[in-house]
Amino acid sequence: MSKGLPKRSEDYSLWYNELVKRADLAENSAVRGCMVIKPYGYSIWEKMQAQLDKMFKETGHQNAYFPLFIPKSYLSKEASHVEGFAKECAVVTHYRLKTSEDGKSVIVDPDAKLEEELIVRPTSETVIWSTYKNWIQSYRDLPLLVNQWANVVRWEMRTRLFLRTAEFLWQEGHTAHAKRSEAIAETEQMLDVYATFAEEFMAMPVIKGIKSANERFAGAEETYCIEAMMQDGKALQAGTSHFLGQNFAKAFDVKFATKEGGLEYVWGTSWGVSTRLMGALVMAHSDDFGLVLPPRLAPIQVVIVPIFRSDEELEAITAKAKEFMAKFRALDISVKFDNRDTHKPGFKFAEYELKGVPLRIGLGPRDIENNTVEIARRDTLTKETVDLNKVDIDTKVKQLLEEIQANIYKKAFDYRTEHTTEVSTWEEFQEVIEKKGGFVSAHWDGTSETEDKIKELTKATIRCIPLDQVEESGHCVLTGKPSSGRVLFAKSY
Amino acid sequence: MSKGLPKRSEDYSLWYNELVKRADLAENSAVRGCMVIKPYGYSIWEKMQAQLDKMFKETGHQNAYFPLFIPKSYLSKEASHVEGFAKECAVVTHYRLKTSEDGKSVIVDPDAKLEEELIVRPTSETVIWSTYKNWIQSYRDLPLLVNQWANVVRWEMRTRLFLRTAEFLWQEGHTAHAKRSEAIAETEQMLDVYATFAEEFMAMPVIKGIKSANERFAGAEETYCIEAMMQDGKALQAGTSHFLGQNFAKAFDVKFATKEGGLEYVWGTSWGVSTRLMGALVMAHSDDFGLVLPPRLAPIQVVIVPIFRSDEELEAITAKAKEFMAKFRALDISVKFDNRDTHKPGFKFAEYELKGVPLRIGLGPRDIENNTVEIARRDTLTKETVDLNKVDIDTKVKQLLEEIQANIYKKAFDYRTEHTTEVSTWEEFQEVIEKKGGFVSAHWDGTSETEDKIKELTKATIRCIPLDQVEESGHCVLTGKPSSGRVLFAKSY
Repeated sequence: MSKGLPKRSEDYSLWYNELVKRADLAENSAVRGCMVIKPYGYSIWEKMQAQLDKMFKETGHQNAYFPLFIPKSYLSKEASHVEGFAKECAVVTHYRLKTSEDGKSVIVDPDAKLEEELIVRPTSETVIWSTYKNWIQSYRDLPLLVNQWANVVRWEMRTRLFLRTAEFLWQEGHTAHAKRSEAIAETEQMLDVYATFAEEFMAMPVIKGIKSANERFAGAEETYCIEAMMQDGKALQAGTSHFLGQNFAKAFDVKFATKEGGLEYVWGTSWGVSTRLMGALVMAHSDDFGLVLPPRLAPIQVVIVPIFRSDEELEAITAKAKEFMAKFRALDISVKFDNRDTHKPGFKFAEYELKGVPLRIGLGPRDIENNTVEIARRDTLTKETVDLNKVDIDTKVKQLLEEIQANIYKKAFDYRTEHTTEVSTWEEFQEVIEKKGGFVSAHWDGTSETEDKIKELTKATIRCIPLDQVEESGHCVLTGKPSSGRVLFAKSY
Repeated sequence: MSKGLPKRSEDYSLWYNELVKRADLAENSAVRGCMVIKPYGYSIWEKMQAQLDKMFKETGHQNAYFPLFIPKSYLSKEASHVEGFAKECAVVTHYRLKTSEDGKSVIVDPDAKLEEELIVRPTSETVIWSTYKNWIQSYRDLPLLVNQWANVVRWEMRTRLFLRTAEFLWQEGHTAHAKRSEAIAETEQMLDVYATFAEEFMAMPVIKGIKSANERFAGAEETYCIEAMMQDGKALQAGTSHFLGQNFAKAFDVKFATKEGGLEYVWGTSWGVSTRLMGALVMAHSDDFGLVLPPRLAPIQVVIVPIFRSDEELEAITAKAKEFMAKFRALDISVKFDNRDTHKPGFKFAEYELKGVPLRIGLGPRDIENNTVEIARRDTLTKETVDLNKVDIDTKVKQLLEEIQANIYKKAFDYRTEHTTEVSTWEEFQEVIEKKGGFVSAHWDGTSETEDKIKELTKATIRCIPLDQVEESGHCVLTGKPSSGRVLFAKSY
């Protein structure tokens, strides 16, 4: 099945597209830019959702659901917000179809025009803050900590499966606070939640930082982000957390009575991650044979493939497999026993390689005889024969899954380390961006003009000003003007 | 807090609307017909989702996600389908906004008109069957058992929170089979899943049946349903499961190579339940004091309210409450300890009554002294003092929760029994529908004309032809024409 998967080194972009389709993650639909998330892909997204949802609830958030449609006038209430989203909005103008006069086709009924056009939400700040106006009267109503799992639409002209699609699935947290400092603390807390999720579950190291003004969310005072490095040396923004200041509170007139008897505008945050994480997961770890999934997000962690020539052999193998499965399930390890007789073991091996199943156990008559098993690791593509007289299968598998999780992370971490370069001169900057890729750590004079110019010349943008930035005086790599610390540039998705 | 809740006996409809809002389940949004599902309401929906999702997976289904938008031409491919949905479709015609020439407002950009209008999905048969065409080639690809959790839009003119909203949340299962009999078995299996969920989790008895042609899903050969009885004597359709025959396979040209080497159209089903179930849950059990939630769907099953006058008293009570909570959580009983000092016990009692928390434990200094607790049941509004020297608190609470679940079901079951009337004459029919309400079991001649006429005269429709219908020859209650069995009529939501 993996035959013919393009090589990463030859055409990274084609490799990605083909892998997403062949591994049954997603495919394009008949509607331009909208994808179908296939069952296998969706089962990985469900694992992501379950873990993130748990982390949101542990930090005191509750889920709710707000309307898909936003009145056009709402979007306009926050000036920079509408500017950021107006160019890519799907607009609902009518609410009925009818049969054409010749009876041959179905047309939009011109008599069913909406009084005010509705926007399909590109993000929900406006509809949510218009609701919060009624929910918040006093300091007792704060903080308000709400999350929503939803679909959103941004009419992108160039789309790619998971990375940039017209419709995507995401979660969006929207919180309201009595104090500026509390809202900032919330923004930072949720950035930490995202970073922990990316590193511990996706096995994907991330840099936490702040966006420059150019890349800030439309309507935010400050945008925090986590940035990851893909295997082609391009960066990927994996999550953002916005400190909204009082912008939306002012736009929607959301005030609260303070403890001291005053009346003040509320402070806000919003934060989100999306099905884009699926693209990041694929590009961070997978290889020319297919997906490499971190065990903590793999829908199937272990697959058992029987190798047999007779029903008798299969019977003995099945008994052993059932014994294994019971042990694995007791440890919450998900396992599949693939006893299809329509496909040969070699076909199955390739299929599970393509689908990134972390561990594969081959079980044949000789294994039953000798009380052994052969375990193949997806991450290293190595095999090992295990003597079950000496080792418990469940202990062994559990330990291997932990090793794989750590190994995948380390590999990505090492790649990023090798692809993070400090530069001092503009020549170096250009050369690294052009030839090596990865993050370039360089001084910058802090102006949007310089950032624009660098983007124009190299296609690289400031991915973030790292939170752990060290104070270091220097000179802007392009203009030579003074700078107080390095920022990270990269080409990006 | 429950003060002023209208009484069911005086204005059932107002009681429902007010209860949904005051118990923090949902509210109307600024977008006509679209609701906001509030955190407390959403947490009940999450419990419903989790249980249904588990049941779908146990019956072999996988989740996936299909586009929100459907090209207008797709909808038209199945003739009766488009007829059923065309009159209530939200239509996207443009993909961009821009600033007006005077710079004062944001308008729809006329240059950004879509070549083909897109419909916001009212249901996803068309977009899914257009995808299945590529997924299904051979009998080996069947059965295809897929479910989707999604939002859908039907532009209803008269809306009511949960019961009928322009946008709602639901799940829609879409399956494809090699044989007619397998598709029918799937349709019936999913109806059973819905009935089990309604009865065992929602504590709401349902009648399983088949819809008459008038009430059949647009595009189905047969629609199965579960029908519940609300406390005002009106029926509510709580879930439907459709046998689609080969209608969508033919509309989208989905054929498969049979084992025998032939080429045949695939057989289909679809089935769904929605946030409408939230409305059913409220109307089936709640009373003039607020919600009555079945323990198996209650986000909080037990609340502990401390009654104290000093910090010392609170300290002793808190220690005891923590002990209780540890015991409850060990049994997977969800518990909240409400130690807010901003509200008095009486206020809290009313609040949890309004929100339908099944059990309330009041804990005061005398309870600590005597090793007792007072437990209040929401369903019966009765209180009981329990001597903890004789009874374990966790055993007691577990048993009470089971009793409540059973009692709520029984109450609803008895109400339905009392409100199911067999009639023989048209006079009886009219009188029962008019004065008593509930299900009316009557003979019907099997024609749509008679059903239409009865609806016109009494507003009652055929809710279903029960699956357990007994063969019994008789005469149609309206026309006197021969009939072979009774069907259930009712006014309905």
